[in-house]
Formats: sequence, C-alpha cells, structure tokens
Amino acid sequence: MATMDMRTWRTGIAEVVSTDTEEEILVRGHKLSELTGSISFADMMYLMFAGTLPTKAQARVIDALLVASVEHGIAPPSMIARCYASYGTSIQSAVAGGVMAFGDRMGGLGEQLAKLMSERLTAISDDPQSIPEERLREVARDVVADAQTKGERVPGYGIPLHGMDPRAPKVMGIAKSEGTFGVFGRLGELIEEELADQRGGRRVAMNLDGVGAVVVLDLGLDWRTTRMFLITPRSVSMGAHFIEEQDQDTTWRHIPADWIDYPD
Amino acid sequence: MATMDMRTWRTGIAEVVSTDTEEEILVRGHKLSELTGSISFADMMYLMFAGTLPTKAQARVIDALLVASVEHGIAPPSMIARCYASYGTSIQSAVAGGVMAFGDRMGGLGEQLAKLMSERLTAISDDPQSIPEERLREVARDVVADAQTKGERVPGYGIPLHGMDPRAPKVMGIAKSEGTFGVFGRLGELIEEELADQRGGRRVAMNLDGVGAVVVLDLGLDWRTTRMFLITPRSVSMGAHFIEEQDQDTTWRHIPADWIDYPD
Amino acid sequence: MATMDMRTWRTGIAEVVSTDTEEEILVRGHKLSELTGSISFADMMYLMFAGTLPTKAQARVIDALLVASVEHGIAPPSMIARCYASYGTSIQSAVAGGVMAFGDRMGGLGEQLAKLMSERLTAISDDPQSIPEERLREVARDVVADAQTKGERVPGYGIPLHGMDPRAPKVMGIAKSEGTFGVFGRLGELIEEELADQRGGRRVAMNLDGVGAVVVLDLGLDWRTTRMFLITPRSVSMGAHFIEEQDQDTTWRHIPADWIDYPD
Amino acid sequence: MATMDMRTWRTGIAEVVSTDTEEEILVRGHKLSELTGSISFADMMYLMFAGTLPTKAQARVIDALLVASVEHGIAPPSMIARCYASYGTSIQSAVAGGVMAFGDRMGGLGEQLAKLMSERLTAISDDPQSIPEERLREVARDVVADAQTKGERVPGYGIPLHGMDPRAPKVMGIAKSEGTFGVFGRLGELIEEELADQRGGRRVAMNLDGVGAVVVLDLGLDWRTTRMFLITPRSVSMGAHFIEEQDQDTTWRHIPADWIDYPD
Repeated sequence: MATMDMRTWRTGIAEVVSTDTEEEILVRGHKLSELTGSISFADMMYLMFAGTLPTKAQARVIDALLVASVEHGIAPPSMIARCYASYGTSIQSAVAGGVMAFGDRMGGLGEQLAKLMSERLTAISDDPQSIPEERLREVARDVVADAQTKGERVPGYGIPLHGMDPRAPKVMGIAKSEGTFGVFGRLGELIEEELADQRGGRRVAMNLDGVGAVVVLDLGLDWRTTRMFLITPRSVSMGAHFIEEQDQDTTWRHIPADWIDYPD
Repeated sequence: MATMDMRTWRTGIAEVVSTDTEEEILVRGHKLSELTGSISFADMMYLMFAGTLPTKAQARVIDALLVASVEHGIAPPSMIARCYASYGTSIQSAVAGGVMAFGDRMGGLGEQLAKLMSERLTAISDDPQSIPEERLREVARDVVADAQTKGERVPGYGIPLHGMDPRAPKVMGIAKSEGTFGVFGRLGELIEEELADQRGGRRVAMNLDGVGAVVVLDLGLDWRTTRMFLITPRSVSMGAHFIEEQDQDTTWRHIPADWIDYPD
Repeated sequence: MATMDMRTWRTGIAEVVSTDTEEEILVRGHKLSELTGSISFADMMYLMFAGTLPTKAQARVIDALLVASVEHGIAPPSMIARCYASYGTSIQSAVAGGVMAFGDRMGGLGEQLAKLMSERLTAISDDPQSIPEERLREVARDVVADAQTKGERVPGYGIPLHGMDPRAPKVMGIAKSEGTFGVFGRLGELIEEELADQRGGRRVAMNLDGVGAVVVLDLGLDWRTTRMFLITPRSVSMGAHFIEEQDQDTTWRHIPADWIDYPD
Repeated sequence: MATMDMRTWRTGIAEVVSTDTEEEILVRGHKLSELTGSISFADMMYLMFAGTLPTKAQARVIDALLVASVEHGIAPPSMIARCYASYGTSIQSAVAGGVMAFGDRMGGLGEQLAKLMSERLTAISDDPQSIPEERLREVARDVVADAQTKGERVPGYGIPLHGMDPRAPKVMGIAKSEGTFGVFGRLGELIEEELADQRGGRRVAMNLDGVGAVVVLDLGLDWRTTRMFLITPRSVSMGAHFIEEQDQDTTWRHIPADWIDYPD
C-alpha cells in the first residue's frame, strides 16, 4: 500500500492501440471491433470480469440474472432517481444517486453473502467446487449459528414488500437447467434449510440478492463483482424512471411538514 | 410544474404485484418472471425505454452499441473509479463517481447531438423517417452553419486520443446491415460530409457518441435515453477497473507537488 | 479548450510547501498555519473565493448567509441523506447524494439569478456598482418581461412550503446594516417591485436563494460561487440528519405499493 | 430495524413553522431568524451536532479546525473536482464527487481513530473525561499493540506529501490554549509516544485527521461527526478549484496511453 501518483498505471483489462496503421481497443486480448456485433452484452460483461468469454450456458444465466435485476418498480433507487428529476438534475447525476443508494442495508446484501461464502469455502479448499455435500452442510450450520450468536440475519434471505421474491427461484432454476449451479448455489440452499429448521420449518426464502451472489460465485467470478450485477442492470431502471418523472413535470419532491413528528 | 409530496406517484414502467395468490413484477405489462430466461439484457433495456420488445434486428444493434461502449481502457470514468479504489471507497461510490463524470464535454456529446437532431427533424415532420434526402441535406447544412456561427463544434464528431474512433463505423455498419439505419443515421452522414467540405475535404469522422445518438434515434427511442447507452455499459468498466486497482493495493492517487505550476 | 493530461496543473489558490526547513500551505499567499486560529471560517471561505480577506462587515454578512442556509428541516437534501442512512451508506455518500440533489429546480435558482444579473449588469458597465437607479429599473423591467415572454418565472422569488421565506429578509437586512448592500441587492428589490406590479400588487417575495445571489454578487464574488453558499452550509444539515436517522435505526425508506398509481 | 415508508419521520434537529401568524425555522429550539446575524457558522455547526450553542472557547477551536481543513492544494478531492470541471459537469456534481472520494484510505482515517477512541474510553467510563492518565497510557499501549498484531497502522498518524503535517500541531495548540483539550487529545499524544517508542524514538506525528478526531471528541461530539469537519470545510476547496479549472478552459483530463503499462 504505497501512495501512487497519476502517472503510473497498469491494467490487464484493455489496451488502447492507436498507430498510423491501426486503431483498436483490445479487451482482455480481444479486438473490440471484432467483439462488437458478434457477442452479446452478457458475454461482454463476463469477459470484462472473468477475462475469458462465457459458454452459451453461462451467458444465458448472466442474461437471466441481469434481466431479473433491471426493474423493481418505484423502489429506493428509482425513487431517488425520480426525486432528482423533480429537482432538475442531470440524468447522470440521477443514476449516480441511485447507484450510491445501494448501501449495506439495501442492495449490498448479496455482496455480503458472496464475501462470506467465498471466504468460508476458499478456506476449506482451493477448488471450492470439489467440496462435498456434508462439508457444505457444516458450513451452512456454522453460518446460521454465527449469525444467531451475533444477533444478525444471514444476508440474502427474506424480502420486504413481497411475501417472497418472485425473481429469485426463477434465476436459480435457470442456473440449474443450464448446469452452472454449483457448491455456492447448494450452500445457499443448505443455509435456507438451516434457517427453516431454526424457525420450526418456517421458510425464509433466498431473495434475488442472495441468488445473484451464489450464481455469480458459481460462474467463477470474484465476490466483489456481485454488486455490479445489480448496479449495471438497475441503472436502466433509474434512467427510465428519471425520464418518466421528467415527463410528468413534477418538482420539489418533499415531505410535507405534517408528516414529521417533532418530539419535545 | 407543481411541488409534489412523496405520497403521490404514477408509473407505466412497472407494477409490483403482491397478493395472497401472486408475487410478480409487471414490466411494461410483461411478467418479469416470464421475461427472465427468455429475453436478453438488450431486449430488456429496449423494453424499458421503448415500452415494447425489440425485433431481433433491433436487439442485435443494441447489443452492438452496448458492447462497443463497455470499455475504453483507463479513460476518465475508469480513471476516476480507480482513484476512488485507491482512496478506499465502496464499489458503488466508484461507479457513481464515474457515471457523474459524464459531463457536457465528456460523454454527454451524444445526447447533445441526439437532442439537436430530434428537435430539428420533429419540427419538420411528425414522422421524421419520412423526411426526404434533400431536406436532410438542408438540415445538415444548417446544423454545420449554426455551429460555425456560434464558434462551436458539432457534437459527436472527431475524437481525442485516436486518429479515428475504431468503434463508430463498426456500429454504424451493423445498423445498416440489420436495417435499423434511418434518417438520423443519414443526417449524421450528411453532417459529416458538410464538415469535410468546410475543411477542404479533411474528414472529421463521427465518433461513438455520435453514432450512438443516431442509432438510438433510428431505433425510435427518446433522445434522453442516449446517455444511458453509455452509462449502463460503461458502468461495467468502472467496476472492473475498481477491482483491478484494489488488487494492486494502491493508495492515495495524487498529483505530486512538482507537477503543479504556481503562477506569481 | 484542449484535452489535458493529468501532469500539467496551474493554481493560484494554494501552494503546498514542503522543504527541509518548512512545511506550509500557502492559501492565496497567506500561511495556513497563521490563518488557523486567527480568522473565522467565513473569512476563510471569502479568502478562497475572492483571493483577499474580507472586511469585518463582509465577514458578518457571510456568516449570516451561511447560518441562514445551514438547516431547513427534513427538506429534499436532508430527506435524501436520511434515506441513504436507512440504506446503510456512508456519511460521505449521503452528503454527496444531498449535494447532487441541488438541481436546476431545487437549490440552483440562486445561481441562475446571479448569472442573469451578473451578465446583464457587466454588459452595461465594467463597474456594476456605479450603475444608476433608473438604469437598474430598466433592467428589472426587462428581466421580468423576458421571463413573462418565455413563460418562465424569475428565479429566486417565491417559496414552496412557506407563506414567505423567514430567512431572506433577515439576511438582506444584515447586508444593509453592514453596508455591503449594493446594486445587485437593489436590482433584486426592483425586480420584486416589477413582479408585484404585474400581479396587481400581490407580492412575490425574494427567497433565500435570491437573497443569497444578490448578497454574494454585492460582495464582489463570481456568480458561480453562489451555489457554494448553499452547498457548504447545508452539508452540515445532511450530516446531522444522516446521524439522527442512523440513531433511529430505520431501514429501507420506500414508497408503499398502494401509493403508486398504475395508469392503464 | 424495520422497513420504513416515506410518510413517517421524527426529528429533533429542526422544526419548520408556517402558520398565518408565523414563518420560522426552529433549530434545536432556537429561532433561525434570531440565530442569523447573531452567531457564527462555527457556532451553528456545533449547535447542529451538539444540540446546544458552544462556548466562545469551543467556537474558536471549531473555527481553527475548520479553517485548517478548508484547503490542501491540488489534493485528491480538488483534483477530482477539477477533472469534473474539465468534463463539463455541474459544480454540485464536482463537489459531490470530491466528497465521495473521502474513503477509508483518504479522509476517513480521522473517523476511524475517533470511533476507536470513543469505543475504548466509553467502555471504561460513562464519563471519559474522568479517566486518569495511567489508564489512558494503558489504552494507548493496547491500541498500538493491537494495530501491530493486525499489521495495521493506527489511523490519524503520519502524512504523505509532507515531512509532517503543518496544520495538526497548530490546531492542537489552540485546543490547549482554549482549554478544550481533554482525555481524547491526551490519548492521542500517548499513542504518539507509544508509536515513537516502538520506532526507537522516531516520531510519527499525529496528522490533521487525527487531531481533528481528538478535538471533536473533546468537544463532546459524536465520533460520527468527525468526517463532517473535513467534508464541510473542504467542500469550499472543491468549489474554488472547480471554478479555477473552468476558467482555464481545460477539457478531458486523462491518462495518456504511454503512461499505462499493459502486462503480458
């Protein structure tokens, strides 16, 4: 950890080529001019994070996760974007404001689950996918027990505003049918079982944040990319709601004084 | 334009359904649980902005534009995201910071061209796609002349750091081969011709911002969505560069004192 | 307007001195170690923007404007900051989110008035303070007439949520008693008179945004600094409301589904 | 921690009064119209966070801390704000971008020290100011030892770009001369002594982040306010540098391709 100036940079993500004979951008070694038109956005997103192109099955799972994550109605990030529209900000500020709103209690829980699972399983084996069922069950038990001890919830389970998350099982199902479902997905299910046992059978279903986390990890991606599979697709929602609010020509979205309690 | 409280909202984008019998999110009238796994992210993005699903050809053009816009090396937005990583911010703050960096001089030029073209052609006809070539040529002449009078450049043409933009012609070519190319694309070409005539034949090629603008307009989308076709894909780059910079464990990206000139 | 690298910088604001014999930061030529403890924050803010230290009277006016601008209850920027607290973001993200919310329709109107006044009066004279009353009255008439023609409101007048702005007349009164009141303040009053005449005598009082604009201009500051006299003090409110919301341990501030109208 | 709607709010910070007979904003029970013109910004900032007005001595210490924190040349936050200016963003976006840049490795270290000290001393006594010297020395020893065990640095000590921080000792001196210096300041000194002992006498001086932390805690403020004593004053710097960069009419601040290393 040394302080760095703005002159020294190293990247393996992309190289900008600009010579007398060639104008190109090499992304993970691939010519962007060749990728353009031949791969999908889902392929490209995977290439950026994994360094290699995904299989057709992996790409279908990514598309499913992205599509499921694009829109959730007037939820906090789109609410923020719409408020900004009513204040007269730019669309990029509104999207930035919505993205920033993904904190530790809203939008960030998938990352927390991914980090937790990643640390637990890589501690057991360099090849987490080889960890046997019974070992996963022990981990699930530990995860639930530790949360209980700390008086915390396991991140990625349960959902406000819905009886259950309608998107989560769908994405999980696609990961299974496409064959990308692995130990992380299985660990997610085992944690769900443990939570149900604790509650005398009452199920606390994995939500989309949780499913996104296990799907991303089973695709072999870094746990730190989890949040991007929410931020990138949901930015579309922030933009769409910003434009719709502009069309409604509202202004100054605010809390009326009589909604506020002033304790003495 | 009336001040609005936080209680009154209207949206045609999505409806959250949560009843005893159903948990669903209806996006532009489609069940999200059915869209998930059956359409691509490009389809979904078009659905969000256009209100209807795109044709296969339209979806291919959107994918091409998105893929071409994902990465541009250590360019301003990824530079900002990497600096933030070195300062120890969250990934969502880094992406927000990169998104906010898309101002009027960097990243916003496509929107300016889209707005300008949209206003000029809708003023001529409610069905811009029906405007004849000769009329478009007059508009191109006016656009270039007006810019010259104001001493401004026409937004969306020319590019720093490259002799020419390697991505722009590729995307434009796909719009043509897929058949989505229309009057806006043609107007873009005519403006390019006008600019070349002015410069005694020296070409100032349309850049990716410009091509993105005309492609989006020819897809029938609102000019205000233009910026989203940069913000959403480029967010992936911001996230990838943030993670790479974290892995390099840099800290405190800064300008050394001896790079700064203090005029007396 | 040339593209710039990150190596070439010029500033007259501050110089960082770090030698074997001296460690100092020179702000506008003054030693920060000597300013610290000898001047107030209001003095420092003026020094940063004006390049010189203010008179006692000017400092008192700045303090009055800053104090009046710190807090406005649970208004949009503090509402945003509190929402962020409920989402589990950092305090700096919450303040950034509140600052970004100051758009063209909320928080930005003072800047618009300052720009408009500055452009009109500098077009008349290099020394605006020398412009005579009758000329100012003509300008006021033009400003109101132009707004009417465009079907717009003159920015900085009228206020939502209050019958009138309780802070504006107080700050204006202090500018007068301290003797910093000048042509910009007078122009503000004349515009108010014009607006009243138009409305058959019904007064549309200058609000704090408007008063802040004229006070800042009469202090000899650049119109672009206007927004800072709102952003900087109000950031305190964003931080205070963020902390209070954290203490209330709320989560996921959102719009309940039944507050949303879904048009068919 | 219950999900909250946008209708239910409680605040003790400020109450907006708007009746037929009165227009007022009550801040911590004080009429804003009376505070305006009678107190300084430093008084107001303390009132917002502490709930009561400061003594003259406390206000002088706050002014000293604020003044010392306003400007640090073209440092990361002002560098970011200047880049944004070159990209053509708004001044509020530039300030927001600079504020967000205060992460865990840059700008956030004072908060970390304040949290750490606050937790350690409140664990010992409900009245930390009553904790005797020898007990503080034990805490200092523990803090340094724990950091060593974790292979971390104690936050708030040492500084990049300077041999020592020229601002820190000045602010600490003022806290002593004004009599607000207390156990937190003393603990800061004892930690500095411990660090020096470890390094065979080589001093690692407390920096401004560290001094800000102890000064704020000795003023009786919540550790979470620490960051605000950097964010609020430094926002002035971000605004000033944004305007100066605009005047220089730069565009597209970027990293030239030949500064980037592409590992094979």
